[in-house]
Amino acid sequence: MISKKIEKALKGSSAIRAMFIEGKEMAEKYGAENVFDFSLGNPATPPPEAFHQAVKDLLDETDSLELHGYMENAGYADVRSAIAENLNRRFGTEFDAHNIIMTVGAAGGLNTIFKTILDPGDEVIVFAPFFGEYRQYAANFDAEIVAVRPNLETFQPDIKDFEEKITAKTKAVIINTPNNPTGVIYKQETLRQIASVLERKQAEFGHDIYLVSDEPYRELVYDGNKEEFLTKYYRNTIVGYSFSKSLSLPGERIGYVVVPGEAADAELLISGIEISNRTLGFVNAPSLIQKAVARCLEEKTDVGFYDENRKKLYEGLTKLGFTCIKPEGAFYLWVKSPVEEEEEFVQEGKKLHILMVKGSAFGCPGFVRLAYCVSLSTIDRALPAFAELAKVYGL
Amino acid sequence: MISKKIEKALKGSSAIRAMFIEGKEMAEKYGAENVFDFSLGNPATPPPEAFHQAVKDLLDETDSLELHGYMENAGYADVRSAIAENLNRRFGTEFDAHNIIMTVGAAGGLNTIFKTILDPGDEVIVFAPFFGEYRQYAANFDAEIVAVRPNLETFQPDIKDFEEKITAKTKAVIINTPNNPTGVIYKQETLRQIASVLERKQAEFGHDIYLVSDEPYRELVYDGNKEEFLTKYYRNTIVGYSFSKSLSLPGERIGYVVVPGEAADAELLISGIEISNRTLGFVNAPSLIQKAVARCLEEKTDVGFYDENRKKLYEGLTKLGFTCIKPEGAFYLWVKSPVEEEEEFVQEGKKLHILMVKGSAFGCPGFVRLAYCVSLSTIDRALPAFAELAKVYGL
Repeated sequence: MISKKIEKALKGSSAIRAMFIEGKEMAEKYGAENVFDFSLGNPATPPPEAFHQAVKDLLDETDSLELHGYMENAGYADVRSAIAENLNRRFGTEFDAHNIIMTVGAAGGLNTIFKTILDPGDEVIVFAPFFGEYRQYAANFDAEIVAVRPNLETFQPDIKDFEEKITAKTKAVIINTPNNPTGVIYKQETLRQIASVLERKQAEFGHDIYLVSDEPYRELVYDGNKEEFLTKYYRNTIVGYSFSKSLSLPGERIGYVVVPGEAADAELLISGIEISNRTLGFVNAPSLIQKAVARCLEEKTDVGFYDENRKKLYEGLTKLGFTCIKPEGAFYLWVKSPVEEEEEFVQEGKKLHILMVKGSAFGCPGFVRLAYCVSLSTIDRALPAFAELAKVYGL
Repeated sequence: MISKKIEKALKGSSAIRAMFIEGKEMAEKYGAENVFDFSLGNPATPPPEAFHQAVKDLLDETDSLELHGYMENAGYADVRSAIAENLNRRFGTEFDAHNIIMTVGAAGGLNTIFKTILDPGDEVIVFAPFFGEYRQYAANFDAEIVAVRPNLETFQPDIKDFEEKITAKTKAVIINTPNNPTGVIYKQETLRQIASVLERKQAEFGHDIYLVSDEPYRELVYDGNKEEFLTKYYRNTIVGYSFSKSLSLPGERIGYVVVPGEAADAELLISGIEISNRTLGFVNAPSLIQKAVARCLEEKTDVGFYDENRKKLYEGLTKLGFTCIKPEGAFYLWVKSPVEEEEEFVQEGKKLHILMVKGSAFGCPGFVRLAYCVSLSTIDRALPAFAELAKVYGL
């Protein structure tokens, strides 16, 4: 007596989550130090100290009914103002509180955006490889994902394929840079091309197409790359942000959506997202945590920590003969499978206690994803296992 | 370019939420002490002291990566065990961690339940008057609400009407006792009759019908009434709980779902709800708050505070000539409108700065709801305004 959609979902559940549970089981069986779990994007650095202090101060200073009570579905006005000002200062934007809606993480944000804009039968374009959950989020509103091919050398989107995939049914395009799972940052030139295709296609089909920018990795950039904010490239951009990675708070479910005033039907979008926040059952983003992140907007996660991991893993695997895409942001390494069926490679890795996620889970077979948000010592201990794995394939 | 569903929702948005915002505006205009806002169920007592202490202790004692990180979508195993044990002790049930799924409040819980069991075109029975958001939650999955008439004296459900409203399409029944908006507790006899009708109809239609018990007010009972736990009446009961009222944490979005092992397809339900928690974008209930409530399961909100309000408001309004249903639980007073169109009564009240919610918002016109989760002094100051209002109608 379960629904048909869930019956189907139970069959093809998240490969990443399944591996998360498998990793915990393996750690119990073999000892945590003997399992090299690169499966889940769970931050490996603690939140900045200021965060804990902010929570404690709020408990001491703020009226409890205010701190833990209902507020407007969009979130506390003071929190939203603080975020708008922070974005304006960093990116030269001109937002105020009403452009910001606090959400239950980016996943909650994307669902409220999708509920607001998608009708059954609509198409949402994604750039492969892409976070597999986008498919579920679109399916929640009976819309479908259409995947655009990447360039298999650079993992920038194939712009020609993008142009061809847009149809009269295209209501939205999801973009995620720095990218999960590749770690690639889309070049300014790519962003300009995407914007230009969208402008042209909007004119051709006579309706708006929203670019939904999923930005949980916005601040996680290396090698002098700059943080980007995509609303400047394309008017109809809606941003979904999460503090999961920037403040190491994935379990707290805190993020926000930005609807710029210049977006088509901006006021309707804002009201729609606010209502969706309520009717989908989020109601509002967690209240204490809303106030706490507002006090930590200038705080940064320890990018140097991930950078060290990145270098060690990328260089280590490359030296062993694996073909890796050099990550420019986020905390993922995208590795070419030495055999066509990457599932086989994943299984071989598992024998050596290495947990990797197959590329097919991201709509891009032939590759695997390694989440290097682990301790440096895990990478140190994993490299000999990778050396064994390389031998299996004669690298 | 917004979706058709949201376009419709924007037209008929929540009467309660609209009034919440109107109340804040009126408070700014006339001064908070001159506005008598009985519109929203926002608890008026602070969380127990132990809650703040638990949060502080957790920050000091628990590893940050554990405290703010991802866990299984169902929530921390230790938190779910603690809740199962607490329920078992109080209600003689036999749950373990795997029967409990932590959710983003009861609203999040109901949506994950509905996603798991509802197919498009299914019907969900509700007992009028009912929390208006149930309609949206069902609509999220293209299912429809079918309302059962109450007895207009006792506000127990009309069992004959219930029996007639169940069809082959009925997949679920929502029950909410202590009830929002009436404050009535469904009698044991009512619960037995509901169970018996459901058993009969299950046999008649040859499929399971789930009773979904929405229990945010479980512990808010007066006059020696006992807390109830509905799984003992009917095998196919799924419970949605929230700590919003019991620990005064509505903004924190924390609750849980219970799927008893004896429910039909229990294991599929559990997996489905867990997956829905992820795919709807909740991912998991807020992590720090999960751990904090697990330390406060023996704590109680100040029921005496609400009880004093209840008596003062019920007696005050009854003495003024209003017809009130005596509340036995929750923190709502259900008042008969002196005129047939209760919207007119609501508007008259507003002229005297009294904010009430129209019964139509709960599928039961001719009545209004007063949320008495306010300070006692608000009631004291409101009574003269109600006296004015009584005069308008010659009471």
